[in-house]
Amino acid sequence: LLLYFLRSGLSVPDPRQREALMKLEASMQTGGQVVLTDAEQRLDALLFKMKQEEIRKADFPPSMHFFQARHLIDSSPIFSLMQKMPKGGALHVHDLSMVSVDWLVKNVTYRPNCYMCCTDNRSIRFIFSSRWPKALPRCSAWTLLENLRAKTVNVTDLDNSIEGNLTLFTHQDPESVYPSQDVVWDRFEQGFLALWGLVTYAPVFRDYYHEGLTQFYADNVMYLELRALLPEIYELDGSFHDTAFTLKTYQEVTTRFTDQHPDFFGARIIFTINRGVNLSVMVRAVEEAMKLQRDFPDFMAGFDMVGREDSGRPLWFFREALSLPAERGVTLPFFFHAGETDLEGTDVDQNLLDALLFNTSRIGHGFALLRHPVARDMSRKRGVAVEVCPISNQVTKLVKDLRNHPAAALMSEDHPMVISSDDPAMFGSSGLSHDFYEAFVGFGGLSSHLGTLKQLAMNSIRYSSLSPPQQEKALALWQRRWDKFISENTR
Amino acid sequence: LLLYFLRSGLSVPDPRQREALMKLEASMQTGGQVVLTDAEQRLDALLFKMKQEEIRKADFPPSMHFFQARHLIDSSPIFSLMQKMPKGGALHVHDLSMVSVDWLVKNVTYRPNCYMCCTDNRSIRFIFSSRWPKALPRCSAWTLLENLRAKTVNVTDLDNSIEGNLTLFTHQDPESVYPSQDVVWDRFEQGFLALWGLVTYAPVFRDYYHEGLTQFYADNVMYLELRALLPEIYELDGSFHDTAFTLKTYQEVTTRFTDQHPDFFGARIIFTINRGVNLSVMVRAVEEAMKLQRDFPDFMAGFDMVGREDSGRPLWFFREALSLPAERGVTLPFFFHAGETDLEGTDVDQNLLDALLFNTSRIGHGFALLRHPVARDMSRKRGVAVEVCPISNQVTKLVKDLRNHPAAALMSEDHPMVISSDDPAMFGSSGLSHDFYEAFVGFGGLSSHLGTLKQLAMNSIRYSSLSPPQQEKALALWQRRWDKFISENTR
Ligand SMILES: [Zn+2]
Ligand SMILES: [Zn+2]
Repeated sequence: LLLYFLRSGLSVPDPRQREALMKLEASMQTGGQVVLTDAEQRLDALLFKMKQEEIRKADFPPSMHFFQARHLIDSSPIFSLMQKMPKGGALHVHDLSMVSVDWLVKNVTYRPNCYMCCTDNRSIRFIFSSRWPKALPRCSAWTLLENLRAKTVNVTDLDNSIEGNLTLFTHQDPESVYPSQDVVWDRFEQGFLALWGLVTYAPVFRDYYHEGLTQFYADNVMYLELRALLPEIYELDGSFHDTAFTLKTYQEVTTRFTDQHPDFFGARIIFTINRGVNLSVMVRAVEEAMKLQRDFPDFMAGFDMVGREDSGRPLWFFREALSLPAERGVTLPFFFHAGETDLEGTDVDQNLLDALLFNTSRIGHGFALLRHPVARDMSRKRGVAVEVCPISNQVTKLVKDLRNHPAAALMSEDHPMVISSDDPAMFGSSGLSHDFYEAFVGFGGLSSHLGTLKQLAMNSIRYSSLSPPQQEKALALWQRRWDKFISENTR
Repeated sequence: LLLYFLRSGLSVPDPRQREALMKLEASMQTGGQVVLTDAEQRLDALLFKMKQEEIRKADFPPSMHFFQARHLIDSSPIFSLMQKMPKGGALHVHDLSMVSVDWLVKNVTYRPNCYMCCTDNRSIRFIFSSRWPKALPRCSAWTLLENLRAKTVNVTDLDNSIEGNLTLFTHQDPESVYPSQDVVWDRFEQGFLALWGLVTYAPVFRDYYHEGLTQFYADNVMYLELRALLPEIYELDGSFHDTAFTLKTYQEVTTRFTDQHPDFFGARIIFTINRGVNLSVMVRAVEEAMKLQRDFPDFMAGFDMVGREDSGRPLWFFREALSLPAERGVTLPFFFHAGETDLEGTDVDQNLLDALLFNTSRIGHGFALLRHPVARDMSRKRGVAVEVCPISNQVTKLVKDLRNHPAAALMSEDHPMVISSDDPAMFGSSGLSHDFYEAFVGFGGLSSHLGTLKQLAMNSIRYSSLSPPQQEKALALWQRRWDKFISENTR
């Protein structure tokens, strides 16, 4: 095999050598070395047949926009297996997009004291308040939703219209609704501003997170590393709690949920701040993060920045702030978003290298990694996993046909990676299953198999922020669930 | 630098190490090692500014469909430099799509004895004949074009409609006109059938090829390796010549053209056959190719198959035929199309590996190469260049945004490659300049530079089928033209 690089001049290919090279290549991919049990092999054969049928169809979901493909995916037998499969942990999910917006509308906006106003750029804002709230700039007068609903003939239409403001998902043509990256990011940010007032209300905050855990748990995800802005949450009288209170709330709800669900492993928090801030704000944020890391060592996982990379400041701009932990001898793991861009060669495009130079524990997205061979090598050799979020990258218009997603190449050589969903509620996806479907069918084509899925699930524990003994425990728990999944689906 | 893979725990990035890694990465790309002269550096600085402006524009041409981007590219100062730049050789161009269809309509269809009929699937067919030709099945009665034009009020409309049948280029929305790969390939094949009768008429055949050389020469291409079906060309009386006559005609016209244009280096022919044939036809084709290779050793470059890979038979199906040269101890270089697919893991998807196992001299397209690490490694280590045809891959719907073309990753690590145009007349592109623009601006972003362009041009000689002494000569000729280009554009 080592001789395969030599040109053999006037010779005919040896079928055994060909077979060996094909096997070599197959063994190089994610999960290529996984040895399957007999039962697993039976399920794998079934999956292969399902994929062959999926590829034969005129509409191949991974090549379509997720908004148009979702109903096809939902009816796919592969997807139904993805849902049942224990997928391990979700390592790249944001706090304010964990819960399907349907729940926000049907549950949260029906609670008492909920006010709404309409902004002059056609978005909406909410607030819970015991008194009539003060008007917001560039917004209509507040209405009590209860009153508005009482006056409205078609409440379903009203609720649908509210829901449309809280998510990017649409049944219209996504190309027309979101013609450019600028438009989609603008709508994305407006969506977060719209749900901000709903979710940061203390009683809702607790319930929202609990509901988020419930939804991921229902999708057979057993662990979560949540990127959280840790907003100062408010009470009905307009008073605010501090950041530590927010973190403590997360911890309490997590403990309660884990107690209720012994086969759920838990959650940890990655504190995030928007990259649009200036250096001094970033310095304070890093200081706050170090403090939280010290006070909640078991629950805090580390620090990251959020917001559109292309319009924000590059990591290197914040180097003074990001150097503080090392300078002070304090451990603050980083989990930087990097390479979520197609602006090759710009300052922002250096984020991948800089994230690695700042010893990031993982890379959020890493969409540009293929164009950066040095960063790619570092990520591989250091075992810094890429958090791949296929649907997110498609919705934000980095790639159209998911077969061309760079992770397809990374998966063909078992680059350290995990699959995640970024902002499932914004994209109308659920837990991890839709993204697992896209990765398995879109990136892998007919080449990926049950071993690939097994490896991806195990990667989500191996590349988590959990300590080695915790990883052992999590892996044992996952294995029990996996064995159950295999036996239940190979009868 | 060698230590950069070690995690450095609690340390702050060293700006000099960062700088060194950025330089290392920049030096790894295609052209990254090219040392630029002072004059070249001045032009490079200009190019960089032009690119920055191109990226700032709302409509970034490489992210758009070429049909919609062409007018933007044509007015770009970068494109105007691409046109003037000596680009070396075009190594992946097909015989029947060398000449802009405008010339076919305005020149060829105005010649006497030109008949046209309309097929029942809304395409057209042509024939030159001294008598009224026999009706074709599934086609209307023949009309003499001269008569039709005399009866037609708006001849421009008629000519435009003919032209529309000979090319895929359209001013309508390409997504609506070509909603799927199946549709675009069907229209593609109909286009070739339409121009077949025009181009295979002996006098036109000579003129067509001469015009093709003229157009590539005008685009500052100095050498051509033409994939040619070597059709049996016909005379006005309906008689046919043999394949050797066709090849001889190519050779004569090439010699005449090269004599007329001393700074044009020449052309060679890669004999091609459609991959839709059965094994015995393929055996005969390979035998014919060996014979032609023996009889025209200086002019024949080798053998290849054409037609849509996804719907044709895989290379391995033809292994008996393709093994004949080696078995008989005869040299017949292969230049296989391979990996022009997104059907990962299918039989066709093995073409990349098989092309390499059959010692292909280059790989046509290699679009799927990133998903095949073993084939990728073999291609790299053996110096088997990929012939990258960006516009072609976009038009046939393998990729939408050319920044996501796999060649962007290949270019970031100087994978052996050349840029070519495949079927420029079908795509409405000219020579190599449009494809060079897409590669330079789209694949390279702000990272690629004048050294990249220089290397790509030199690659087209280095990876050509020319013998080493011929390559020396060609390179010397190219260098003279390059120096002139630099001095003329840095005044
Ligand atoms: Zn994210
Ligand atoms: Zn071709």
